[in-house]
Parts: sequence; C-alpha cells; structure tokens
Amino acid sequence: MRHSQRGEVDPFIVMDVMEAARKAEAAGRHIIHMEVGQPSTGAPAQARAKLIADLDDPLGYTVGLGLPALRARIAQHYGDWYGVDLDPARVVVTSGASGAFLLAFSALFDNGERVGLGTPCYPSYRQILRAVGLTPVDIPTTLAQRFQPQPAHVADYDLAGLIVASPANPTGTMLDAPAIKALSDACNAAGAAFISDEIYHGIDYDIAPVSALQVTCDTYVVNSFSKYFSMTGWRVGWMVVPDDHVRRVERLAQNMFICAPHAAQRLALHAMDCPAELEQNKAAYAANRTLMIDGLRAAGLTRFAPPDGAFYIYVDVSDYTDDARAFAAQILEQAGVAVTPGLDFDAARGHRWLRFSYARSTDDIREGLDRIAQFMQAQK
Amino acid sequence: MRHSQRGEVDPFIVMDVMEAARKAEAAGRHIIHMEVGQPSTGAPAQARAKLIADLDDPLGYTVGLGLPALRARIAQHYGDWYGVDLDPARVVVTSGASGAFLLAFSALFDNGERVGLGTPCYPSYRQILRAVGLTPVDIPTTLAQRFQPQPAHVADYDLAGLIVASPANPTGTMLDAPAIKALSDACNAAGAAFISDEIYHGIDYDIAPVSALQVTCDTYVVNSFSKYFSMTGWRVGWMVVPDDHVRRVERLAQNMFICAPHAAQRLALHAMDCPAELEQNKAAYAANRTLMIDGLRAAGLTRFAPPDGAFYIYVDVSDYTDDARAFAAQILEQAGVAVTPGLDFDAARGHRWLRFSYARSTDDIREGLDRIAQFMQAQK
Repeated sequence: MRHSQRGEVDPFIVMDVMEAARKAEAAGRHIIHMEVGQPSTGAPAQARAKLIADLDDPLGYTVGLGLPALRARIAQHYGDWYGVDLDPARVVVTSGASGAFLLAFSALFDNGERVGLGTPCYPSYRQILRAVGLTPVDIPTTLAQRFQPQPAHVADYDLAGLIVASPANPTGTMLDAPAIKALSDACNAAGAAFISDEIYHGIDYDIAPVSALQVTCDTYVVNSFSKYFSMTGWRVGWMVVPDDHVRRVERLAQNMFICAPHAAQRLALHAMDCPAELEQNKAAYAANRTLMIDGLRAAGLTRFAPPDGAFYIYVDVSDYTDDARAFAAQILEQAGVAVTPGLDFDAARGHRWLRFSYARSTDDIREGLDRIAQFMQAQK
Repeated sequence: MRHSQRGEVDPFIVMDVMEAARKAEAAGRHIIHMEVGQPSTGAPAQARAKLIADLDDPLGYTVGLGLPALRARIAQHYGDWYGVDLDPARVVVTSGASGAFLLAFSALFDNGERVGLGTPCYPSYRQILRAVGLTPVDIPTTLAQRFQPQPAHVADYDLAGLIVASPANPTGTMLDAPAIKALSDACNAAGAAFISDEIYHGIDYDIAPVSALQVTCDTYVVNSFSKYFSMTGWRVGWMVVPDDHVRRVERLAQNMFICAPHAAQRLALHAMDCPAELEQNKAAYAANRTLMIDGLRAAGLTRFAPPDGAFYIYVDVSDYTDDARAFAAQILEQAGVAVTPGLDFDAARGHRWLRFSYARSTDDIREGLDRIAQFMQAQK
C-alpha cells in the first residue's frame, strides 16, 4: 500500500535504550532509569479522589476549547504565578502539549514553510512539523549560548516561525525576560510566529521562569499538565493564543480533536488546587538536581550547563567517546544505569552528548550516581 | 500575528443550532435535542467501577501503539464480531477516531494530494485534510447510490485516497461486502489508499455491518470507543493498518501523540467486557429508529434512505424549503426541536436537507416526533 514521504519519521534512539533496559530487567538485573522523561509520581492523590465522584457523570464531549471552569482556572494561574491578567477566552485546553503543537502548526503555517528549532531540542517538534508537511530547520546552539537560539537566527534562517523552550529539554536552560523579548521582537519584525514551549514551568530552581506572556501578546504559549502537575498519561495541556486567533484555533480544535479528554480536564482542574503535593514533588526534583550536579562533576562529567529547570542534564562526553549510543549501551551494560544518547535531540552533534534525567526518586538518583562514578573511574 | 491559509476552517453550522437551543433553554423553554451526535449514556457502569481501582496506579504514558492488553482485546473483537483472525500487532490505539485520521493522513499522503469523500459526509474529514495540507475532494453521491461513492470515482477524480464510512454519518447507510471490495480494488488499481471509517459499527439494525478487514488487508480501518461503547469524552479509538505500515504509524504516533489517554485505554478494555449494558443501549437506538422512520413519514418527511446503522436520518426537505438553515431555525423556534441543516455535511446541496439524530432517550424521540408532526401539519 502507498505511503507518504512526510511520514518517514526518524526512529527514537531512546526507545532502543528503553528496550535494552527492559530486557536487562527481564533477565533479573536492577536498572536505574535516568533515560525516562516523566515523573514517577501520578496525579495528586486529592485530585484523583475528587475525580471518582466525577465518574458518575456521562463525561461526554466538552466544547472544543475546553471546560469553561478549567479555562478560567488556567487564566487565574497566570495571575497567581506571573502577575499576568489573562482573558480566559485566550486559553485553549488541548490533548496534551502534543495536541497544542498540532493545532498551532495548522493555524500558523502553510505547506513547506520553515520553522526553526534551536538544537539540541525535544525531537518531536521536528517530527510533527514534517508529519504535517512543514520544514523543520535545525539551528545549532552552543553551551556558551546556554543552548538557546538567538534573535539574529530568525532572519538568518529565513524562518516563518520559531519554537523556543524554557526550561528546555534536554538541557534544562531557561530564557530570561530580555531574551524572550528580543526573540519575540525578531519574530515580529520578520513576520514569523513565536511559539513558546513552557511545559516545564513549575519545575524550576534558583530563578523563577518567565512566561512569554509577560513580555508579549504576539505569541502562542504551549503548556501541559504532564510535568509539574504530574499527569503525563492523561494527555491534557493548554495553549494561550492571541485574541484574534481564538476563533481560528477553536474551529481547528473542533475538527481535529473534537475536545481534549473530558475526565483529564476534570482531573486537571482538581490538580490545580493541590499545591502541597505538587510542591513536595518539586522539592524532590530540587534535591535530585543538587545531587546530580555534584555527582556528575565528582565522576568527572563536568561539561554541562547547570539546569535552571526541568529534570534533565545534558552532558558533553566528547572527552570519553565519539559514539554516545555505544557509550550509553556500555553504561547500561556495565553500570546498570539507562541514559539517553544525544542523537534524538541533535542529529548532527548528539553523538558526543548524553542526557541524564533525574525525574525518579532521590534514592534512585543516589544509587545511579554511585554506579556512574564507579563506571567513570573504570574508564581512566 | 501571521496565520496560515490551511487553518481557515469552515464554521460548523450545527454549532449555531446548539447555541440557539442553549439560549432557548436558558430562557426556560424545553428543547428536544435531535441535533446532537453523541449517546446520552456514559461509559458502561461496570467499566467505570473497575476504573476506580486503576486510579491508584500512576497512569503515566503507555507505549505509543497503546496498552498491549487492549490491542490484543481489540484483535479478539475482530474474531468475535467478524470472524477475522487479526494480528494484534496491526492494531493502533488512538486518541479517538480524530487521532486516527491525523495519523492516517500523515502516514499516507504528501502535501496537496487529493483525498476523496462521498458527500454528504462527516464534515471534519474535509477540515482535517485541509488543516494538514492535503486537498479534500467532494464526490457528490445520490439517494439512489444510498449516498456512497462508486468505484469509478477513484480514477474519475484522480484520487490518492478515498475515505468511506459504513454506517455513514449523516445518512446511516452501509456498504456491503461486494461494494467494499469493489471500492478497495479500485483504490489498489489507482495506487490510492482506502480508508474505512467504521466508528458506528455495533449500532446497526437489520443487517450486520461488514468490516473492510473481511475483504482486504490493504486498508486503514478507523474505529472508536465513542459510539457503541458510549465513551465519547474519553477520546480513545483505534486503527488497523497493513503489516508493513505498523512501524511507520508507530513512529508517527510516538511523536504526534506520545500515546492515547491511559485511563481511557484502561476504561476501554473494561468496557469491551460489558456486553449487556451496551446491547441495552443498542436496543434503545433500534426502538428510536423505528419510531423515527414511522414518525417522519407520518409527518410527511418521506424522502430519506432508511438507515442501516448509526443514529441519524438524513432527509431531503426540498419540498418545503431551499434554506435548510432557516428551516431548522424555524423548527427550533416553533416546535422546540433542534435539528441540523445539511450544510455541514454537503456544502453544495445541504441547503435542502436536514439531519435528525435519534441518539437520545426514547421518550425524547417520541415527544420530538409529536412536535415535528404538529409543525409539519402547520406548513400545509
């Protein structure tokens, strides 16, 4: 049967790591998971308890833009966290951040248009863009740039749009307000759309993250209940769009998704009122981060930007290898720690990088770092 | 801010009807809903009870193709219902039928390619195709053709793909095995993809519906837990693809969706083992259908194909109006019954048609038919 060219998606290298880890576990080994990009916690317990009562309702379709109460609560969240007075009408509840990107790309870009990504970055940006007939444009960034794209890139790469992430995956670096403003201005000047991925907001450490909504209305902001709210499998997120894009996005959402999952929307509304449990999760990530920074350095893995947020550290391992895939396989085999080679995030340079996730329990992180230290000792 | 051309989606006319009905209800009127395309029932009660225990699990991401147990159970369903021996590896659990179409279109078609739809049809096919940069091609069908496309259309319209629905929305008509085979053969001969929308299977009356999988492996079959399994708001469906498309669709699914909602997948698995409650829903639709066919005819609305399945009747009202939108507004205003003008389903000819849904309770259907009879009496 026929198939498309645009559906020729690159494989996820991390899937090979996960499969190898699964096999090792099936063979009786104990593996520490530093490859996985999701919290080990579920949705807040109080929120789940409230959802049980909701299950008595039919939970049919919601309106396309999402439950009005959830949209209002999300708008309030921008007041609470950022001091931004946001009209709930601009909030679109989506089927995860994934659904938000699909909506944004259809609303903003026509076939073949060029959309820039600072590499290393979340690999699915590139694959979704291709899958819907657009042209992803890799923009190599450096450790000195803290892996974030620069304003001049918008014109240099002839972009119709730019996606930034702050905190970023795989690096954990953030953009401050002047940097976001400069990127947004560069996009406006070029007639390009500025898309701000803020799904790791709330998982931040020394500095508070800045939302693009604090500096501009001319942006699509993408967020998710997966990370801070610990609801990965529920597939619910949101997007904030400019006033004059709401109707357009609403019609696309009605047709492309009908609505985001209803039960997940109810649960998200409940989860937003569970700060104690969520802040407890965050404290664990903060402890893990300190252990990771110190532990990786002590093990001789020193070339990384200390993460401002999220739960990843992206490490330059070129002193040890030119083949991060083989190196990751060796760490799994010899140390029993699963880590992700950089190739998924940066096809051109990722063979010299590894991503370490610290989303799991603090005990696991401690044990994993001990194993890595021993492994690195053996490399000398 | 910039926006795309392909995101210029036609508005849903039915939304205006729903809004007008909502306003009438807010003003204290009692409205019978024959515009709504979803069951009034929720997921089976036994399935919901089982889901409560599942909520103790973290319910993180599942693998991209869906829970293995659900894929196996769906494969078994093809044995139970159709006598088809299906490899579970070919089953892809999706974020509703909507997610299945997004996946299928990305996997099968490149920018601008032509995909045919027999009109009248489900309006979102057309809008999703446009939103992802493809070219929807309307193929007008007739009452004599029972509103289904014909094999010759594939070459005549120079199609890269054809979508058929059986039972269809808005007409409820079905394709038999020879008709499906002829359409599939015509697609194969032209190098076009054959996509069979089977989301209303299980809601059928005098004849059992035929799955495209009974006559060919060269097809994408789309199905859903929304209709027969009464789980609209949970956003979970499935797709069966050819063997050699599984890896391709898996990679697309991982990137475009990560996974279908986990809780919805668990609930779907439970719902598949609740036949008693589901057959009770079906019996109500069957009773409603008989009432509708008799009631509409008695009211003088005789020009329709009696539906084989689903819960719609599509009626030619050209004896009474050239403006179905105004006619529907009049029925709402004077009779207190909300119905859908045909324009969403057929932009060219829908101004002479109405869709009546009989998804709600039998008491509502009886009352709605009485009101329609009175209204039609007053037209004479």
